[in-house]
Amino acid sequence: MADVDDRVTAAVLIIGDEILSGRTQDTNLRDIARYLGVLGVDLAEARTVPDVQDEIVEALNALRSRYDYVITTGGIGPTHDDITADAVAAAFGLELYEHPEILALMEARWGVELNAARRRMTRVPVGADLVKNPVQGPPGFTIGNVFVLAGVPAIMRGMLEDVGPRLRGGRPTIARTVRVEQSGEGTIAAPLEAVAKAHPQMSLGSYPFFGPDGFGSNLVLRGRDAEEVAATVAELIAALREAGVTHIVEIDPAA
Amino acid sequence: MADVDDRVTAAVLIIGDEILSGRTQDTNLRDIARYLGVLGVDLAEARTVPDVQDEIVEALNALRSRYDYVITTGGIGPTHDDITADAVAAAFGLELYEHPEILALMEARWGVELNAARRRMTRVPVGADLVKNPVQGPPGFTIGNVFVLAGVPAIMRGMLEDVGPRLRGGRPTIARTVRVEQSGEGTIAAPLEAVAKAHPQMSLGSYPFFGPDGFGSNLVLRGRDAEEVAATVAELIAALREAGVTHIVEIDPAA
Repeated sequence: MADVDDRVTAAVLIIGDEILSGRTQDTNLRDIARYLGVLGVDLAEARTVPDVQDEIVEALNALRSRYDYVITTGGIGPTHDDITADAVAAAFGLELYEHPEILALMEARWGVELNAARRRMTRVPVGADLVKNPVQGPPGFTIGNVFVLAGVPAIMRGMLEDVGPRLRGGRPTIARTVRVEQSGEGTIAAPLEAVAKAHPQMSLGSYPFFGPDGFGSNLVLRGRDAEEVAATVAELIAALREAGVTHIVEIDPAA
Repeated sequence: MADVDDRVTAAVLIIGDEILSGRTQDTNLRDIARYLGVLGVDLAEARTVPDVQDEIVEALNALRSRYDYVITTGGIGPTHDDITADAVAAAFGLELYEHPEILALMEARWGVELNAARRRMTRVPVGADLVKNPVQGPPGFTIGNVFVLAGVPAIMRGMLEDVGPRLRGGRPTIARTVRVEQSGEGTIAAPLEAVAKAHPQMSLGSYPFFGPDGFGSNLVLRGRDAEEVAATVAELIAALREAGVTHIVEIDPAA
């Protein structure tokens, strides 16, 4: 997508051996991407790293210096492999301390059962603010431009609701899809490229599929200017028809 | 996971705006991770980047210098946003050329319909070898320690079959899961950590869930030595019982 002046960017850092081993299918990236998209924040990059402090620190420092925001998922539980708080503190050169609000919450929840493992979850870097957890368990936290969320999808989604209001939003991207059936990308490519070149502020992508009637493709048009998006959709459909494409469906017509 | 001498590592580079926009749920990472795991190759990192040449080049060069292998997915179709071949060539400082084998294949398939867009798909960097596509469409390619595969999952999986035999395999990781129900991670953490510390060559992870009976966790034990894995499972179950955990199920018992 062409860079525009008001572009707000974010990166996601997925922390966890279970994603890299293939044991767990990540869905947080897609959920975060969609949530940010509505706010006009572009997800610009994502990285997945193992539960190894040096790797988390290196990736976090690379991403937080490059993008407006970084959202991390995973590694904030009570077990020995949950080292995200330690890694984030190390990345910022800060100490961890037991946050009084989390401690009070955990004491109320666990009483005498608040053992050392559970107490680990009360630690945040000095200067961090909390991110509400409306589901279950302790909160996440935010420090600098980094938001540290849980890895369990339902909890991550709940925490996101407390992240959105703190972000500087951009102009939301508007996406429209033109679905072409019974024509492969090889037929679509030339008209698609011609329209893309005429609209450098727009992003036009082709996402092919192979269905019962052979190859087809979803052509996705993304831009920030509603009028230009609508005009580009119309131009693309006209160009496709001129190229002999017959099965065209506009999936997301403008209201 | 502890580094061992014979560790063979790989990274995945997912290329595509559609993943970062949240439009498409990636599943290739998990499939590649599982495929590599069987071969004893550890997936050590993954990155997702947009269809922007400079970003692809930068990520690819970072990953290929750091890991034994890199597998890329996406961006090898005929449309203007398919720039993976260009980016890989640029990363290696190589020219692209029309590979005679792909050209012959495409000419046989398309005849006079082999237009400029389809012809783009015949281009590979000078010196690249092909990766068979047993499904549909042109092959992928490999250059140096990089394998360039399609993004469409069924085609990607087909191409993987031609990647595996070219990799130097490591000792496969053996994984066992001990499932604990009706006990949260806060209860499990201390015995888990004690057993983990006694087996630094093993990787022990805790993956909590919230089910009808409250919190539970899947404790995953991973290692390369079958005897040590079996011994560690037994030690962990004993330690959990001693800590008062009652609902323990061994999901993947050793044969």
